[in-house]
Amino acid sequence: METVDLLIKNGQVVTAAGHDGPVAGENMNELEVLENGCVAVKGEQIVAVGLEDKVMSEVQITDKTRIIDATDKVVTPGLIDSHTHFIFGGSREDEFVMRIQGASYMEIMEAGGGILNTVRATRAASLEELKELGRKRLDWMLKMGTTTVESKSGYGLNLEAELKQLQASYELNQEHPMDIVNTFLGAHAWPEEYKDDHEGYIKVIIEEMLPKVKEAGLAEFCDVFCEKGVFSIEETREIMLAAKEMGFDLKLHADEMTSLGGAELAAELRAVSAEHLLMISDEGIDAMRDKGVMAVLLPATAFTLRKPYAPVQKMMEAGLPFALATDFNPGSSPTPSLPLAMTIACLYMQLTPEAVFNAVTINAAYALKRADQIGSIEVGKQADLVIFDIDSYRKIPYFYGVNLVDKVIKKGKVVVD
Amino acid sequence: METVDLLIKNGQVVTAAGHDGPVAGENMNELEVLENGCVAVKGEQIVAVGLEDKVMSEVQITDKTRIIDATDKVVTPGLIDSHTHFIFGGSREDEFVMRIQGASYMEIMEAGGGILNTVRATRAASLEELKELGRKRLDWMLKMGTTTVESKSGYGLNLEAELKQLQASYELNQEHPMDIVNTFLGAHAWPEEYKDDHEGYIKVIIEEMLPKVKEAGLAEFCDVFCEKGVFSIEETREIMLAAKEMGFDLKLHADEMTSLGGAELAAELRAVSAEHLLMISDEGIDAMRDKGVMAVLLPATAFTLRKPYAPVQKMMEAGLPFALATDFNPGSSPTPSLPLAMTIACLYMQLTPEAVFNAVTINAAYALKRADQIGSIEVGKQADLVIFDIDSYRKIPYFYGVNLVDKVIKKGKVVVD
Ligand SMILES: [Zn+2]
Ligand SMILES: [Zn+2]
Repeated sequence: METVDLLIKNGQVVTAAGHDGPVAGENMNELEVLENGCVAVKGEQIVAVGLEDKVMSEVQITDKTRIIDATDKVVTPGLIDSHTHFIFGGSREDEFVMRIQGASYMEIMEAGGGILNTVRATRAASLEELKELGRKRLDWMLKMGTTTVESKSGYGLNLEAELKQLQASYELNQEHPMDIVNTFLGAHAWPEEYKDDHEGYIKVIIEEMLPKVKEAGLAEFCDVFCEKGVFSIEETREIMLAAKEMGFDLKLHADEMTSLGGAELAAELRAVSAEHLLMISDEGIDAMRDKGVMAVLLPATAFTLRKPYAPVQKMMEAGLPFALATDFNPGSSPTPSLPLAMTIACLYMQLTPEAVFNAVTINAAYALKRADQIGSIEVGKQADLVIFDIDSYRKIPYFYGVNLVDKVIKKGKVVVD
Repeated sequence: METVDLLIKNGQVVTAAGHDGPVAGENMNELEVLENGCVAVKGEQIVAVGLEDKVMSEVQITDKTRIIDATDKVVTPGLIDSHTHFIFGGSREDEFVMRIQGASYMEIMEAGGGILNTVRATRAASLEELKELGRKRLDWMLKMGTTTVESKSGYGLNLEAELKQLQASYELNQEHPMDIVNTFLGAHAWPEEYKDDHEGYIKVIIEEMLPKVKEAGLAEFCDVFCEKGVFSIEETREIMLAAKEMGFDLKLHADEMTSLGGAELAAELRAVSAEHLLMISDEGIDAMRDKGVMAVLLPATAFTLRKPYAPVQKMMEAGLPFALATDFNPGSSPTPSLPLAMTIACLYMQLTPEAVFNAVTINAAYALKRADQIGSIEVGKQADLVIFDIDSYRKIPYFYGVNLVDKVIKKGKVVVD
């Protein structure tokens, strides 16, 4: 029998219900809940799951096995934050206050706020400074149960600064327990230098940035902010097709403020995911579902901006699977808390605890093309686990605003204790 | 020169601006901010505050002085949560889900939910069980920077269980670093046994409960849930007058769901505070201001229930001072986080970081009649301090959903490190 390094017992073990693809529709409200469950880990992998008797008949405990008693605690897969912009210089609390006091988007821009403020600060920061800021934010997230996080560039907007931003999260991925999945988002906004020369910037993206990012292995995904006044459908298609040809997987910031057809484009391009989607059309929902594009919804952004929420009930009815993420960024979502995003989604998108749980575990894993490794508690998957100091998973979104995490296990190692 | 036990230096020291009463109107937007400030503590007291040179000319460092370097950190008074119901048995996550799915108040009541659910669980719990539950919740709050908390009874609704609930927080106050201020709220709801005999229950409150609570020294304040269908204006007045005569200070749950005149009654009775106030009339605002009654507003409750927020801008204009609190309770506000309540108040009540800061420090101290001891960083006050691991107090409501606390100092002792 196999010896094990770690055994968690007596917990309420909660994971996505048996599935062979993303969870959608009414299945979002289902979970597999094992009371007095047991999870055994060897090295970086889960090697047994079930009731204690069953697990103990499959594996061997030794002197060196760490045993964690999870009585009155909940054991979940590590949470997955599939949409963030957590590498950024500066911060924008002044803009937060201006917005509270009713300043318009244009007034904020004129006062030097908005995304270009962050671009200036990110360009000015050294690689080491960006890493130091990023490290602290990863610690925040890890302590709250997030074990895998997506990281978008897009605050550099020139070759050097985009590479620096991706390099920062690439290096943090090496040294921090968090798994970081990089996305190149050079097409996040028009840089000052190219505000009157869109073709010129697209040329820089396609001919300089994308090849360099690919060559250096700095990103798996390519994303574009497709929006009225930002990148049009045609501009987005041009960049995405070039990226696809170079071997990038695709993501898309789509239909956030206007119903531009971003969802339909994501479907046409067979993107892995499309994000925001507040203004998605009914056709867009069907197209995404038919082409297997995951919706990534960002409730904390709607909460921060006091905007409406994405039409998730329609997505449920149509059978379009969705993930939930924080969108952590200094402008529209300055929160790194996935548990709080779950609460906001319960309260303001009328989702059940089960649905938000599936949305930050298995479906988020699909949004990052990692569902074979993470997102559920299954034999053979990476041992990314969270133990919550609460006796039912339904209390995770309920007792909100407080960190309920007791322990975080990443690749079999206890990294928060 | 006085020797000191603790010296905090190089921090951004933030406290209410010079005041000799509650802060109101435009002054809510003012704070005293000292960059590179220094706070010296001896025993349980603050003995010097100011720039390092000034402080060092006033006090003496010894070998035993603990020196904390707060470079790039913020030093604030301990936060004060002036309205909570944190001692309760059971929890109500099922009701949270029912409400998400659109169940009405009546449907929830019929399914055994609502306050009487908590009353059953609280009656069934032993004193030790209530203390154990309460201890964990106090830990949650302390770790997030709350150093003084109000605790209401009102889940017992009979003599024995009301005394047990107050006893639990009384004993926790002895053993836990948190300062706990007890409020007797026997008039929180009509107990099942008296639902058709209101006069009978009022008699129990006035003739049995209040005298016993007073005799045992178990509460400073008496509160009533004055609301249509709960305690009427006349019933509330009867209980409050009796309590006042026995020497209790008064608080009032007023004008939450209907504009019943609770604010006016609080003014008439010279209550210390009136709480909720979503439906307060303009006359109520003026009356409270004229009689020196503090408004205690509960943004997390509105957020949880998806209700409108109290008309705080009107209060600001009228010069009525207000505090903010969590209302932590298992039904309408299952969050213990005062920092998150600050964020919600910024975003949804259009308050500045300065206003919410005053509202959870000095004004909250007035709401508990403790402003002579706590609520600001001043020489002679109790050394209740929080060090936030962030370089500007304006980032406390901005980076929300994450615990930014680095250290908590309670009565001069470092209790969270
Ligand atoms: Zn984004
Ligand atoms: Zn209350």
